[in-house]
Order: sequence, then structure tokens, then C-alpha cells
Amino acid sequence: MASQASSDPGFPQGFRAHVANVGIKDDSLDFLIAYSTAPCTSAAVFTQSRFAGPSVTVSRQHAGGGGARGTVVVSKNANVATGEIGYRHAVELAQRSATALNLKPAELLVGSTGVIGRQYPIEKLRTHFDRLSPDDFTASLDDAARAIMTTDTVIKTARVQVGKAVITGIAKGVGMIEPNMATLLVYLFTDAAVSSEQLQSAFTAAIEASFNSLSIDTDTSTSDTAAIFANGLAGPVDQAEFAAALKELCVDLTKQVARDGEGATKLLEVQVTGARDHAQAKRVAKAIVNSPLVKTAVHGADPNWGRVAMAIGKVSDDHDIDQTAVTISFQGTEVYPKTLTDRDLQQLEAALRQPEVTITADLGIAAGSATVWGCDLSREYIAINADYTT
Amino acid sequence: MASQASSDPGFPQGFRAHVANVGIKDDSLDFLIAYSTAPCTSAAVFTQSRFAGPSVTVSRQHAGGGGARGTVVVSKNANVATGEIGYRHAVELAQRSATALNLKPAELLVGSTGVIGRQYPIEKLRTHFDRLSPDDFTASLDDAARAIMTTDTVIKTARVQVGKAVITGIAKGVGMIEPNMATLLVYLFTDAAVSSEQLQSAFTAAIEASFNSLSIDTDTSTSDTAAIFANGLAGPVDQAEFAAALKELCVDLTKQVARDGEGATKLLEVQVTGARDHAQAKRVAKAIVNSPLVKTAVHGADPNWGRVAMAIGKVSDDHDIDQTAVTISFQGTEVYPKTLTDRDLQQLEAALRQPEVTITADLGIAAGSATVWGCDLSREYIAINADYTT
Repeated sequence: MASQASSDPGFPQGFRAHVANVGIKDDSLDFLIAYSTAPCTSAAVFTQSRFAGPSVTVSRQHAGGGGARGTVVVSKNANVATGEIGYRHAVELAQRSATALNLKPAELLVGSTGVIGRQYPIEKLRTHFDRLSPDDFTASLDDAARAIMTTDTVIKTARVQVGKAVITGIAKGVGMIEPNMATLLVYLFTDAAVSSEQLQSAFTAAIEASFNSLSIDTDTSTSDTAAIFANGLAGPVDQAEFAAALKELCVDLTKQVARDGEGATKLLEVQVTGARDHAQAKRVAKAIVNSPLVKTAVHGADPNWGRVAMAIGKVSDDHDIDQTAVTISFQGTEVYPKTLTDRDLQQLEAALRQPEVTITADLGIAAGSATVWGCDLSREYIAINADYTT
Repeated sequence: MASQASSDPGFPQGFRAHVANVGIKDDSLDFLIAYSTAPCTSAAVFTQSRFAGPSVTVSRQHAGGGGARGTVVVSKNANVATGEIGYRHAVELAQRSATALNLKPAELLVGSTGVIGRQYPIEKLRTHFDRLSPDDFTASLDDAARAIMTTDTVIKTARVQVGKAVITGIAKGVGMIEPNMATLLVYLFTDAAVSSEQLQSAFTAAIEASFNSLSIDTDTSTSDTAAIFANGLAGPVDQAEFAAALKELCVDLTKQVARDGEGATKLLEVQVTGARDHAQAKRVAKAIVNSPLVKTAVHGADPNWGRVAMAIGKVSDDHDIDQTAVTISFQGTEVYPKTLTDRDLQQLEAALRQPEVTITADLGIAAGSATVWGCDLSREYIAINADYTT
């Protein structure tokens, strides 16, 4: 699988995209329409936030039928907490995009990401739609990934092959990332022929093992959306292979998002084994990956396993967790209960300066396990977020 | 009430303290014994961490009878995740302190705070006990507060009067602070005559409204302990007045702890009103005060109310929260749904540069309310925590 491939991974056959700068905030790309010329089955999951924006509201309605074939996305403005006007703008985005492509509005989702609480500069968007022609749909997958970025520092794309079909995807997101059901903006495209039911089932499983196992800063976005569009042009594929490939693609994108977390200098992978069940393993893994004290220790290449112990300990309702049965390792080296020699400790500090850090905790209870991803916490996170809107 | 009074608030009559440097880590104060020469009623609450240290285990046993009259505390080493040896050391601390004071070991609690996973330099402690004389118990309340500090930058003390009695207290804690039932190290002393039952009841209520409403970084310490000792030398007091005074004292100490949070430059107070009940109000208030994006916005004096909306929104299981009924204010100025003029916005930015920031959210549901405290998130938090043990 190509992760951040140097060559553009491309869209599957039948998909086309248009990107532009319409002047939402500055002169960078801020507008994307990506869709399939052929009808699709689709699946989608959205933020559970009580402050979900109208893009999510509209998309949830349109995704309901399982026949969406693409999306329009505005970046640099989230269109959240914008009231009735904001809702009408989201509806208008789908309608005008559909008109330009001779589709039904319900065949398009709407995505939006950026600052909360500001109305779109809607006249700029209307002017852009007025000029939009079918010849403008020549953007690459890399372009599409770039058009949905906010404070992302790199584009996130991935591609996998399944039989004769491919799945490619784009994702964006660097902060406000503790997905609850869905995450960020993630759009996946495939030419595999997959029924709506099969697609929903494979997608839900892939999301749970990838984006729902990711946390940058415990904050849940109001705009999280993940969707997949399957146009079937490559014909049928083996369902198990498709599900496995889809999961692999989602984990690849998840790690790209974690690595580019706001201010991140390191990808942090936390594996919890020996738990009562998967849910407990994930609860403990999230407590570790989200702990500011663990994240700063990882940033400082400090093998301070006491903070991992602390983070496990704070999952206090799990009374079967017994500190004398727990084992903790950094980069595969056991640090608790085993005590390291000074020499081993120095080697471990060097290993922690790598760009990927793995923390493993075995709870010694049963066979439940989970893997989650996050990143370190750096001064740069503060710099990025202490002065974002003004 | 004197908050961080310039003159030492003193102990109530009958209490004495000893502080020392025994060389746990450096040459700063790292050892405290504080106790009442007269018998006491007592109440205490402890961390719920599954990695609670032996100090907590021993203290929990000793506190059970409600007749503890003091505590021994070691700072700069938490004695946590130290196995059977660490447990024997905690027992020995209580025993040797009791011997020196001619008390029963069960009359003393044990506190410990600092780095996790290291054994005490026990011979240094033993040598100190061998030299300890009854004449050494002359320390002030300020000294006692100083002796339990780790990375605290200021001492935390407070005093309130109740009839003829006083309550004074000390607290420490700057990081690993998201108390779950109890918090940090907090020791309160009073000469009021209060029964065990009355003391427990007033103490539990005061802790819920103060330390259990405090969060610096969502991390729960393995050593949290809060205890109160009442020796009755000032005679009986009105129970309702005592409970109110105790709560006032605890809120004062809580704000001192929040203000001195690791890297903090501002005290953050979050008031949630109009909730279904107190529990919902507190859940939402905690989501706001713990949000890294809200904390960094406060640090940057950025009136980015969208992040407050986001934080409210992520309490996603509370389906009665309706974004159209919510009102958000900064420093008493409504920012949502009302839209500020540029001039009002500039005034608000100036107001947000004050050392205390208040965020208010009304959910528009019913009359439930809660107030919680925290602090901003700064580069200094990263600097302090990226390189602590090594």
C-alpha cells in the first residue's frame, strides 16, 4: 500500500473531481466537488456532536438512501453554529452542485471544516457556481486532498487494490480530533461493485478499527464525516478481501492523520493486550494515548512509564485491573515491573527519539486487545491553537 | 478569608508540625509530620486510581476509624508502583512517626507525592527518624505547605473562622490533576468540636463542590488524598456554619491550585446553568474546562466561542442539549447566539487578558448548575512535562 505516495494515487475509474480557491479565507484551495459519473452505493458515518453543523445534518439525510455518489466540501469555514442561514447555505451547496452535474441534490453529501460560528461568504460561492463548467472536473486525488485541508501540514491520501478494483481515499484533520463514531473529513472512492449492505458493514468495521481508534486532543469536531462511494465499474470483488483492504486503507489514513496532529513530532501507537474484552482494552488504550502527561513524556523521549501506569490507573471503574498483573513496554522493551539497568535506559531513550513510538500494556486478565493511535503534545500545539481565529 | 495571606495563617490550637529536608531528591523541604496533641475526629477521601500507591492503601485503613489525628508526608517521591517493598516502607513511615510522638500508628495517615516507580531512599528517612526529637515540632503552616510541594511554584494555604474555632488548610498539586473522588494532597486542621459523622458529611459536600470540581490536565493522580482533623479544643460550633466555612475554605484552596496549574497563566472558571440537573451541568462544565482547544484559546485571549460550542457538543449522550437553546458568555459578555460588533470584540479580547477568565454556558433546559475550575494550557506545560524524570 502506498502511504503518502510520491506519485498521485489517482481516483478509481468513473470518479472526477474539481478543486478551486473561491476566497473563503485566503488564496489556498478551499473548495472540492468529487463524484462518480456512474451511480453508486454509499455508506457514511458522522459526528455525534450536539453542536453538529448543517453540513452534517444535510449529509445525514442524503446518505440515508445509500445511493450518494459524491460530495461537495468547503474548507476554512466549518459552517457550524450559524443558525437557519447556515442551514440554507448547506442545502444550497448541494443543490447548486447537483445542478452543475445534472444530479439530484440527494446524491451529494456536504462537508465543511474550519472556523466555527461564521457565515460563508456565500456570494463568492455563488459566483463560483455560476462559472462552473463540466470541463473543470480534472483535479487529481492529491488536489482533492489538498482542497479540504485546514491547518494540516501534509496531504493524506491512500490506495489499495482489491482484485480488479481499487479503493483510494483522502482525509484531513489535525486538531479537534477525538472521533466519536465518525471522524474529521474522510472520503473513500472505489470502483468495486459492493451492495449497500455489504458496504455499510465493511465500512463500519473499518472505521471502528481505524478512525474511531484515533485521538489527537480529546476534542470532538462538530463536522466529522467519513463516507465511501462505490460505483461498481470494476465489477464484483471478494467481500472478505474488500473488507480487509478497506480496513488497511483506513488504518493507513488514520496513521497519516495522527502523524500530522497539530504540533505533533511523533506518531504514538498504543497496544493494549490481556484485557477482559476489546471494549476494556480500548478504554485503557484511549486513557494512555490521551494523557497529556504521557504525550509530553513521549515528546521528551522520556521513558517515564509511571505516567502510563497512572493513565491505566485512572480507568477506575474497571475493578479487575490489578496493578501487580500489569506489564508495560516502550518500543518492545519491558519497563514495568522489570527494572532497567542504566545502560538499557539510555538505549531506550535513544529508541524513543524515533518518529514512531509504541507503548504496549498487558493487563494480565484475559485475551481482549485494542490498538489506538495518537501523537505527542508539543509547544507547537499551543502556538497553533492559542491564536487561531484572531 | 485570607487567600495566600502574607502573614502565616497558623495552625489551630493543639496542632503541631515538623518539616525537614531528608534528601529525597535535592535540598528542598521534602518531609512533613503534622498532628494534634489532643485526640481528633477525622474524615478523608482518596484517589480511585487502580494504581493507587501504598501510602493511600495504608491511609485508607488508618482513616477508617475516623480517629486519625495527623499525617506524615514525603514529597519528591510518590512511592507508587513500588511493590511489596514500597508497601512496607509506607507502614514503616506511620510506625516510626507514631513511635516518635507516642501515638498509635493507626492515628496517622501517610501521604506521598512525586515521581512514580522509585523506592524511597529509606536509609535517609530512617536516619532522620533516629534523630527526631519532640522539640522539632515548631513548623508554621506555611512551612508545612512548602514541605509537600513538588513542581508547585507557590504554597497554598487558607484559613476560615467558625464561631470560636478556626479551620486552616494546606494543599499541593500542579499536574496530574483530574480528581476522581479525592484530590492531590489536601490537609485541613480545625479546633472545632465536630462528631465523626458530621465531619464526614460536611467534608464530602465541601470536596464535591471544590476539589472534585477542579481539573488541570484530565490526569488522575495515584496519590490523591484529602483529610481533615478536628481536635475539638475550641468547643462546639454551629454545624451549618461549619459546613459553609469548610466549603469556602476548600473552594479557596481549589482556586489556588488551579491558578498554579502546571504552566498556567490564568485561572479559568466555568459556570454552567440551565441544565437538566447538577450532574449534567458538571459533565458539560468539565468538557469545557478540559478541552485543550478551549484552554489554548483562553491562553491566547482569543474569544473563540466556537470551541466552547464544540466542547458542549461533545457531551453527545445528552440528547436534550439543543444548540439553538444554548447561550455562551465570556467574562459576562454574551457571544452566542448574539453576534458582537468589532468594537465589542476588541473590548472582550482585552478582558480575556485578565488573570481570571470566566466562561458561562446556559443550556436552556432546566435549573441545574455547576461551577468548575481549571487553567489555560501553555507552552510551559509542555516544557515542564516533556523532561521531568530524566
